[in-house]
Amino acid sequence: MRRALRGQPASRGIALGRVRVRHPQALVVSEQRIRAEDVPGEILRLHRALDAARAELHGLRERLHGALAQEVGEFLDLHAMILDDPELLHGLDDLVSTGRYSADYALKLQRDRLAAVFEGMHDDYFRSRREDLDHVIGRVHAALQRRGDDATTGLSGEILVCDAVAPQELAELQAQGVVAVVAASGSPLSHSAILARSLHLPLVLGAGELLALANDGDALMVDAATGELVLEPGPADLKRYHRRAAELGKEQAQLTRLRRQPTRTQDGVDIRLYANAESREDVAEAHSLGADGIGLYRTEFLFLQRRELPTEDEQFLAYRDLVLGMAGRVVTIRTLDLGADKADHSGLALRTEPNPALGLRGVRLSLAHEALFLTQLRAILRASAYGPVRILVPMICCREEMQAVIALLEAARASLLAESAPTGPFVELGAMIEVPAAALGLPDFIDLVDFVSVGTNDLVQYLLAVDRNHESLASLYTPRHPAMLRLLAEVFSYGRRNGIPVAVCGEMAGEAANVPLLLALGLRDFSLHPSTLLEVRRAIRDADHASLRRRAQSLLRAHDRLAIEKWLAR
Amino acid sequence: MRRALRGQPASRGIALGRVRVRHPQALVVSEQRIRAEDVPGEILRLHRALDAARAELHGLRERLHGALAQEVGEFLDLHAMILDDPELLHGLDDLVSTGRYSADYALKLQRDRLAAVFEGMHDDYFRSRREDLDHVIGRVHAALQRRGDDATTGLSGEILVCDAVAPQELAELQAQGVVAVVAASGSPLSHSAILARSLHLPLVLGAGELLALANDGDALMVDAATGELVLEPGPADLKRYHRRAAELGKEQAQLTRLRRQPTRTQDGVDIRLYANAESREDVAEAHSLGADGIGLYRTEFLFLQRRELPTEDEQFLAYRDLVLGMAGRVVTIRTLDLGADKADHSGLALRTEPNPALGLRGVRLSLAHEALFLTQLRAILRASAYGPVRILVPMICCREEMQAVIALLEAARASLLAESAPTGPFVELGAMIEVPAAALGLPDFIDLVDFVSVGTNDLVQYLLAVDRNHESLASLYTPRHPAMLRLLAEVFSYGRRNGIPVAVCGEMAGEAANVPLLLALGLRDFSLHPSTLLEVRRAIRDADHASLRRRAQSLLRAHDRLAIEKWLAR
Repeated sequence: MRRALRGQPASRGIALGRVRVRHPQALVVSEQRIRAEDVPGEILRLHRALDAARAELHGLRERLHGALAQEVGEFLDLHAMILDDPELLHGLDDLVSTGRYSADYALKLQRDRLAAVFEGMHDDYFRSRREDLDHVIGRVHAALQRRGDDATTGLSGEILVCDAVAPQELAELQAQGVVAVVAASGSPLSHSAILARSLHLPLVLGAGELLALANDGDALMVDAATGELVLEPGPADLKRYHRRAAELGKEQAQLTRLRRQPTRTQDGVDIRLYANAESREDVAEAHSLGADGIGLYRTEFLFLQRRELPTEDEQFLAYRDLVLGMAGRVVTIRTLDLGADKADHSGLALRTEPNPALGLRGVRLSLAHEALFLTQLRAILRASAYGPVRILVPMICCREEMQAVIALLEAARASLLAESAPTGPFVELGAMIEVPAAALGLPDFIDLVDFVSVGTNDLVQYLLAVDRNHESLASLYTPRHPAMLRLLAEVFSYGRRNGIPVAVCGEMAGEAANVPLLLALGLRDFSLHPSTLLEVRRAIRDADHASLRRRAQSLLRAHDRLAIEKWLAR
Repeated sequence: MRRALRGQPASRGIALGRVRVRHPQALVVSEQRIRAEDVPGEILRLHRALDAARAELHGLRERLHGALAQEVGEFLDLHAMILDDPELLHGLDDLVSTGRYSADYALKLQRDRLAAVFEGMHDDYFRSRREDLDHVIGRVHAALQRRGDDATTGLSGEILVCDAVAPQELAELQAQGVVAVVAASGSPLSHSAILARSLHLPLVLGAGELLALANDGDALMVDAATGELVLEPGPADLKRYHRRAAELGKEQAQLTRLRRQPTRTQDGVDIRLYANAESREDVAEAHSLGADGIGLYRTEFLFLQRRELPTEDEQFLAYRDLVLGMAGRVVTIRTLDLGADKADHSGLALRTEPNPALGLRGVRLSLAHEALFLTQLRAILRASAYGPVRILVPMICCREEMQAVIALLEAARASLLAESAPTGPFVELGAMIEVPAAALGLPDFIDLVDFVSVGTNDLVQYLLAVDRNHESLASLYTPRHPAMLRLLAEVFSYGRRNGIPVAVCGEMAGEAANVPLLLALGLRDFSLHPSTLLEVRRAIRDADHASLRRRAQSLLRAHDRLAIEKWLAR
């Protein structure tokens, strides 16, 4: 029977497929004993499943190298560590060999025991760790249950309907053929949603009702841009679906034609579009879309998921590949932007912090580890011999930090000169503007930089004191806040008056809907993920720059979000 | 032999006393078995020690009601919970009754077992919880060892030399007669340091060398204002000590005379000094020091350390006491400012957050729990029938929130009117300015408020993206940042131009050294803890307002901290 429901739109695109329901995890295994002579075989079976789970995690990590590595790497690594935990493994073997339980039941017993330890801890934090444990045990359990190769092909053309979806699952699900995901919980600002958008995977959240209603094999129609869900769609729905699919196809074709077009407004103002990139694929895509360069190359992936720090040569080769890949267009390399929330999974030993977003991260971490920072600066300078390079420093909050960076950059340059190692003729140095004090304090250090780039994700987070991953504060977290717009306008105008280029490299610049707003405020340099570059280019080509600039004053007089939305609607 | 050392000054005052060394915790207990017939007696002994530890924690909590409750309550509660944990208790009894271990050794075994569980968790967070466990076990162990009543009297006139000191210990130590504390680790910006200052307890940090050198009973001289430490001081040191003691005594006498003096600059400008208060003692002190009113009354203590939420009547009585205690001077009551970092210990069930400072706290929490907020607003309105009351709303970040608060305040007023409950003729409504977006966005909601109060502690934290309790970032965390000063100047001037009084109620206003700076920037209303009120009054009385205001422009041109310090030095 047809049922129309509505969830929260969290990405874009439409899908029509069979439902695959995943109910909230519960490991139901009945007690099963084995004979003494079956023990070795059962232990082997158990370890094969553990190995399979490890291999899956490893495969995921490999596949995720690049744009997704940073976002989901930490989960994968945590899970890999749990899988290798002696406490887990030792108990399992014992349960099979001494207790003579089946591997499946041993797994359940061990899971229950560890979960009880977590539960007994009177602490939500521990309870959330239990979810990770369940995830890992669930993966091993699935490997135990698996017969042949059904697992990787079973989901083709299906729409996953679940309680919650973790960021690290999305790419895996897509690779298995899942065409859309509908979850009961989650926020459109979560990492999952951001990833779904960059994977072009339709995702609808807040659809608890569907989870209760849908059964495996039901037909489901999903429009991720509107949140519309139709279970067992009727003829009229299907017609609408095909019309919408045709529209989207046409739109895609139009976008594709924009690859070779200039990024110029209706009234002939040229805007620069840089790409945010992390992998060779991103770089290749950026180049093929006609990006003006790389505006933000994140270097964290070189440091994560490993026990030792990358050597200078290793870094040099990665940066050189990047520079050569852009064939003469400028490449902006951001120095290490790790913090305690991620550093667990790197070669750096850092302490857990009560508020990692306000902790030892970005340039603070680099300045606290001078040798590490010097190594990175030397590697970047060496890569600059192969093409134009800019260095972008994250989390700058005062003049003193910029001075310290310059001193180290000079030291790196001098040491390379002493070794007669070639470097480029000129490497520009810039600061990320993501700490509010840096936005307000730009006049204090503008003489020390060649360019700046506004990281709106963090800037909004600090300016509003709202964690951007906080589900229940999702409605507060927005760059469309009057104070944010005024601050941006000031930074853009101060940069222009001082001949210092200002880019925006946060999510804000990657949304076509923000283009009129950013142009009105005076932005000329956008840096964004290649996945939305063409849409943003189209929005810029549709805009009239002079009239937007004339309307800036009325935008800056907005006192609340509604007024900003109204301005945008006009 | 005399040894002069230097640590980091963390409070003020001087002390001369005998050293009491506390080495980093290590529970050294040798294995000891008991006879079967001794089991009941040993179990009794164990439970008496557990009860004694519980009673100590309870006594501490009682004594800390008021100014310190908020700061240290969370630790005490966590420790009380650990003491009641079935996992801990059950194992202990078993070890004594079945294992026939002495209570002391059972305690050690249980500690080792639980510590191993924590250690095995691959996570710094768990390891830090281990410290709490050690603290609790150490307390029980001390109770087991205790003979007679030596524990509470043994420290009189002594200076504790230790590895680290927790905030919750300081008041206890002072009550036991400790005259100063010297610790190897800790930051001058930590809660411990803030508490030491408000307790007037000399505290020196970063003195690891002393811990290695000093022995119990050595004589030690401490100057907490300079960090100077002299072990086995010689005649010249003692002379210097007595001179310094005499100076401090004279200074104290001078300060005492300022109780009845007006807070007026040299050139006759009247400045208002409000008190930050949490307890009846604070209120009494504020009144006796001639404070112009209460500028910040924190209401969290009503909600913490309890399982149920306080009733409207309970809150009403607390607020009425406060209003009556100030005898006609204005009382500013801040609505609930709880967040996930503290709410574990309240009747509110909140989720752990990855960044509690950027989470569901302050007005966000109140607006998410409307019934709770309405109850508090009704209680405050009822108290306003007994004297002038202002309502101060924490963590405001946009106009929409202020509108939501006003709607609820109107609803509270209407409901009281319907019940013919008396309220004051007029209650002013104000916003805390502590989120950077509120400081920048004041023009967007100034028409909705009667006054504002700048919470510099949080404002600096968000503006610089530096957790104020982060030890290794202590040098970055400062209100003396050019962007902070410019932002303050703007807020002060915008308030003045619009006839809206602006106060500063963060730590910044409580330091006499900041007085010239704040007066230059245009501040007229200070709100500070009574413990430094007289010093700040003296600094204001020493200042020439007009000349400071003339020097404001040169202050606002400072590009770094050094330039600000230089301005202050002139």
